[in-house]
This record gives sequence, structure tokens and C-alpha cells, in this order.
Amino acid sequence: MEGKEISQAVIGRLPRYFRYLGELKDEGIERVSSQELSAIMKVTASQIRQDFNNFGGFGQQGYGYNVEFLYWEIGKILGLDHRHNLIIIGAGNLGQALANYVNFERRGFVFRGIFDQNPRLHGQRIRELTVQPMERMEQFVRENDIDIAVLTVPKTEAEPLAQRLVGYGIRGIWNFAHVDLNVPERVQVENVHLSDSLMKLSYNINRYQQL
Amino acid sequence: MEGKEISQAVIGRLPRYFRYLGELKDEGIERVSSQELSAIMKVTASQIRQDFNNFGGFGQQGYGYNVEFLYWEIGKILGLDHRHNLIIIGAGNLGQALANYVNFERRGFVFRGIFDQNPRLHGQRIRELTVQPMERMEQFVRENDIDIAVLTVPKTEAEPLAQRLVGYGIRGIWNFAHVDLNVPERVQVENVHLSDSLMKLSYNINRYQQL
Repeated sequence: MEGKEISQAVIGRLPRYFRYLGELKDEGIERVSSQELSAIMKVTASQIRQDFNNFGGFGQQGYGYNVEFLYWEIGKILGLDHRHNLIIIGAGNLGQALANYVNFERRGFVFRGIFDQNPRLHGQRIRELTVQPMERMEQFVRENDIDIAVLTVPKTEAEPLAQRLVGYGIRGIWNFAHVDLNVPERVQVENVHLSDSLMKLSYNINRYQQL
Repeated sequence: MEGKEISQAVIGRLPRYFRYLGELKDEGIERVSSQELSAIMKVTASQIRQDFNNFGGFGQQGYGYNVEFLYWEIGKILGLDHRHNLIIIGAGNLGQALANYVNFERRGFVFRGIFDQNPRLHGQRIRELTVQPMERMEQFVRENDIDIAVLTVPKTEAEPLAQRLVGYGIRGIWNFAHVDLNVPERVQVENVHLSDSLMKLSYNINRYQQL
């Protein structure tokens, strides 16, 4: 890991490795070869070895990788060995859907608060969270060691909100607003642009018909 | 377009070009150079030209691209010049959030129906849609020329559902279930694996701290 820059393409594949290894682990499988992983994941074995070599290779022996070891190592690389405290900003349908996902918590991503500017939503409960007014956000972020903010707000509100959150010392933004955010390099942004994804699907459907 | 294979990375960037060009168009800007686009979009100008060359280059002159022309051309490539009929399967929070997004409709993606296996949700209204039982899905898909199915169901239900939908003649699946689907080549799948995206964010936060 020291100083070596790893491409976002490789990083984008790590969660998928983690997911498949978790399934193998749950099935009680102890070892897996890159060929076997390749067959399950539909990635070439050489791609797998190449990806893993970015992290020292994880000591594959002749008989393959140790599943549990590999699972935990990739988990550590993904930062899943420590807890992340999240807040959601925007308590609409999408914000509520995310707040209700228990699986995130199993991976160490804990929703600590949810905020909205609509007074009618204030006080509403979503699991163990209560929708709070935006005015409480700063204090809440500082007092609860919040490192990730989830933005499920309209596109026009996202940029000023991001700037405020950066000022509060947030380290990552999971952005569902349909806009690219301008934040300092120290703040990481991961976009989930749903329309972009839908357009990509549309392209592929269209393209297939023309073949 | 004829027969030339364009990489998914290029295709993944097209919606973003489309989005920025739409904004320029709405601002009444008529021409834009690759340098100007580069500055707004934070992609190199040579990347932009390279991407556009996959589609014949869109006739950049010395003074840049015609914004409106480029916007519509990219829209056509993305298949946005004709309407897509969608159904949502899974009327939980996420399914409802998607059904409530009016912006998709503006791009020609029209939600025609929403289905759930939970009888308590049947009959519930979400905008102009009514939650229907799964048993009605086949007939509905065939009668309403549905080409895209949106899966917001638990991971264990996604694969059998995908198989059924393939049988009904669906052409694309927008998959929010946290599993990779096995479908024939003629059916296009676009995954939105939210946990994967969150783990990628976690990696980047973790990585930045170690620099």
C-alpha cells in the first residue's frame, strides 16, 4: 500500500471480490484458486492475479488462496475493519430507503442521524433515527465523529451543502444528487448518479438491437 | 456505430457529457470547444476528443462544437430519442423512491407499473401507479411493451425473477439487488450495487488518511 497509486478501476472491483469471498466463506469453503474465482466471478484468472498483485498478491500457493484470510485482507484494504459514522441529508424516499438498509451496518457503516429541511418531517422516526432540522447538523457532525455524509437532496442544494459539510470536517460524501461536486482533495466523493446508470442501460439496449 | 465495439468506459462517460451539454444548452450557449468542456467537466480535452471520435467526432470546427447538435446526437446514441417502458419490481422504500423520480420520465424512461409480493402493499398508490401482485407481471409486461425491469428486491429473489423476466421478453434489467445476475447476452444488465459503491468510498477515505 505504501505510496503506490492503485487505479480506481482496480478499487472498483475490490468490493465485488469481497462479496464473492464472503459467500465462499459462508459456505465453509477454505481455499480457492484464481481459476475457480475466475469461473464464479466471470473475470479472467489473470485479471484476478493482476488485481491482487497490487496488494502484494495475498500469498497464493499452488493450491490457491485462503478464503478467510483473503476476505479479511480485502476488507481491511476497503477500510471495513473500523466503523464509519454516517449521516443522511434528505429524508425523502431515497434517504429513508438507505436508512432502512441494515446490511450497511453489518459492514461497519452506521447511520447516526438523518436531516431534512422540511419541518413536516422533523421528529419522524426511521428505525432508531429521528429526522432532525438542518440547523442541528453542524453540532451533530462534530459531536458524533461523523465521517461520511450521504446526500439525497435535489441537485441545486447539493453543492452548498457539500461546502458546509467540508467545513464541518467530513471526510467522505456519498452523493446521490445528480451533480458533480467541487470539494477539496482531502474529501472523497463517491457518486451514485442514477440517471447516468439508466442512460448507460439504454445505450446498451439500443446498441444490441443494432448489432 | 456500425459494428464498432465501444468500450464501456467511454459509454459510462456519455451520460455525463449529455448532462453537461444539457446545462450549457439551457443556459443558451451555442458553441463550446473541447478546451471549455474540459475545464467544466474536469476531463482532459484530448480525452473528450478521443471519446467523441468513437462516434465520428461530431464535426468540431476551429470554433468548437455546436452544443445543441452535440446534445441531441449524444442523446440519440444513448437511445433517448425513443421512449422506454419500465416496471419496478419491489415496492419498498427504494422502489417507491425510484417511482417518484420525475426526472427519469423527462428523459423518456416511463414507469408503467410496480409490483410486489407483499399483499399489504397491493392497491397502494405511488404517483399514478398502483402496486400490483406479482402474478399480474407476465401479462402486464407483454401487453404494455415493457422493455426495462427495475429490480429492487432482496438478493435471493433477484435471480429467479430475472429468469422469469427474460422469459417474458424483457430487454434490460436495472438491478439494485446486491447480486450479479446470469442472463442471456441479448438482455442488458446495469447494476447499481450500493454497498459496492459505499465500500469504494471507504477505501478512498482510508487511503487518503494513509498518504
